[in-house]
Amino acid sequence: MKRVCIVGCGAIGSLYAAHLARVSEVWAFVRREEHARALNRDGLRVTGTHEFIANLRATTDPSELPDCDLAIVATKATQVESAISQVGSHFDNGAIVSAQNGMGSEEIIAEHTRGFVIRGTTFMSGTRHSETHVQYELHTATWLGPFEPTRTPYSMVKEAADLIIAGALKAEALQDARPAQWSKVIFNASVNSVSALTGLPHSPHFAHEEHFSDVGHLLHELIEEGKRVAAAAGVTLYEDPWEMNRIGAMTNHPPSMLYDVRHQLSTEIEFLSGAIAKQAARVGVPAPLHTAMYRLIKAKEASWSFSDENRAVVAHEGGH
Amino acid sequence: MKRVCIVGCGAIGSLYAAHLARVSEVWAFVRREEHARALNRDGLRVTGTHEFIANLRATTDPSELPDCDLAIVATKATQVESAISQVGSHFDNGAIVSAQNGMGSEEIIAEHTRGFVIRGTTFMSGTRHSETHVQYELHTATWLGPFEPTRTPYSMVKEAADLIIAGALKAEALQDARPAQWSKVIFNASVNSVSALTGLPHSPHFAHEEHFSDVGHLLHELIEEGKRVAAAAGVTLYEDPWEMNRIGAMTNHPPSMLYDVRHQLSTEIEFLSGAIAKQAARVGVPAPLHTAMYRLIKAKEASWSFSDENRAVVAHEGGH
Repeated sequence: MKRVCIVGCGAIGSLYAAHLARVSEVWAFVRREEHARALNRDGLRVTGTHEFIANLRATTDPSELPDCDLAIVATKATQVESAISQVGSHFDNGAIVSAQNGMGSEEIIAEHTRGFVIRGTTFMSGTRHSETHVQYELHTATWLGPFEPTRTPYSMVKEAADLIIAGALKAEALQDARPAQWSKVIFNASVNSVSALTGLPHSPHFAHEEHFSDVGHLLHELIEEGKRVAAAAGVTLYEDPWEMNRIGAMTNHPPSMLYDVRHQLSTEIEFLSGAIAKQAARVGVPAPLHTAMYRLIKAKEASWSFSDENRAVVAHEGGH
Repeated sequence: MKRVCIVGCGAIGSLYAAHLARVSEVWAFVRREEHARALNRDGLRVTGTHEFIANLRATTDPSELPDCDLAIVATKATQVESAISQVGSHFDNGAIVSAQNGMGSEEIIAEHTRGFVIRGTTFMSGTRHSETHVQYELHTATWLGPFEPTRTPYSMVKEAADLIIAGALKAEALQDARPAQWSKVIFNASVNSVSALTGLPHSPHFAHEEHFSDVGHLLHELIEEGKRVAAAAGVTLYEDPWEMNRIGAMTNHPPSMLYDVRHQLSTEIEFLSGAIAKQAARVGVPAPLHTAMYRLIKAKEASWSFSDENRAVVAHEGGH
């Protein structure tokens, strides 16, 4: 029996935790005490595509966590550092899957553990109805592949994929996960940044290319630019991000970054447009559009605290 | 004694109307009946840099308007067409100054009058406290020059400038107003679009270029791209838009497009980024960044009615 730790129990983390609890001993490492208590008391209820209740152990205290054979880091990309820095040593003899949007989480994880890091890319989706209830929606695969710098053996990738499959989720072990990861990051970076800046969900506008003013042209150019960066980094894409965009544009789905900017939460921009822009600079390929989107979202994040500064200044002047 | 018509009496139109009423017969053509009534009853009160009350005639009815020697079109760029199409024939024997942000208003005006069109670019600013009270703030020049397609003689440009100066405003007649107009449009297009997308007023961020993520880099690139388009169109700039941006970034002034998007009003994007993008396409120079900004703002405008469509669909489904 394997021991697995799920780091972060949002919708995706909850789906991994519940399904893996059917075939292994699952620990959940979460941030909030009430969340841990609720999980320990009620277990995790899954509805939708699958329907069951799973028991697991949850904690907010790194010292309570035993050493694990496998970890799946399922926090937002912006929270990987603070989570893994607390518990990374518990995975020193195991494998650690990154399940974040974008690129760059693997590097952060590898800094905080001596374990083998696995690049994970997932298209699963779910809706979290409460701290202990998640609805499973898109029953799609998690792609797994070695993170090159930790020289993760393919056999460990395969073992992780097999465990996920045993838990009744879909997974695919790949010799090289970068083509899949890059396909998704180019798609996600383009769609998320345009959505967050315009306020449009992933709507038909994103695929319109009839008139000069249509934003579908911009999506196409962002995707082409991303493909040139991938090519310069030696990566041939797994799927065509334009095709992914064309299909997604029929859903009116609000991307996570749209949710983040509406609620003034820090976004995953560093791991999406920012990762492409910085990778482009590294390989010496121009990426003016992804770089522009990166800087616009960073400035948008800055605007949230700038208004507060302004108010503070006004109050200060009024007091003199 | 000249007869002058001010088309549109917002802050800028009110400043022209009040000052010119001291040296000529001024008519104001406005959209709303109450506004015309208030102006006819109370006149226009100017405070700030200058302090006086001016009498003028105001109307919403084109048939009441006499033929005029000079018109100054001071509506928002988005409202030029609907205004000038009603009254353009009253200026057939006169000169018509465009005082809009951006480029492209002159072409619209010229379609609706046989008069001589004058390119106007103004840096004046004021705050409109009520329909009949405007505070004069920046006491800066209006630059005037011939609109080439109507072969406007320089003598008419000079005459218009002299009349504005006689009214105690600043004006400068130029043989070629395009260098001044292009300087301002490149500055305005860059600052307005970044502000409208990020929610930042014209704050110090716009001139920061220290870190890779700083949005000042984007402003610099937008301005350089605009300068390349101007050069390809045969225009040497009058002022350096980057210097204009550097100075403006110290003011925390909210650009008009930020106001527009906050209030979901249609923006002047067609006359700013859109004008640069289309001019670039015409002269065969790439302008990917201004084109991207243009499409993002157009998509942002589309988002305002798209949400409504969504809500309508939900209500519809609920009803079945």
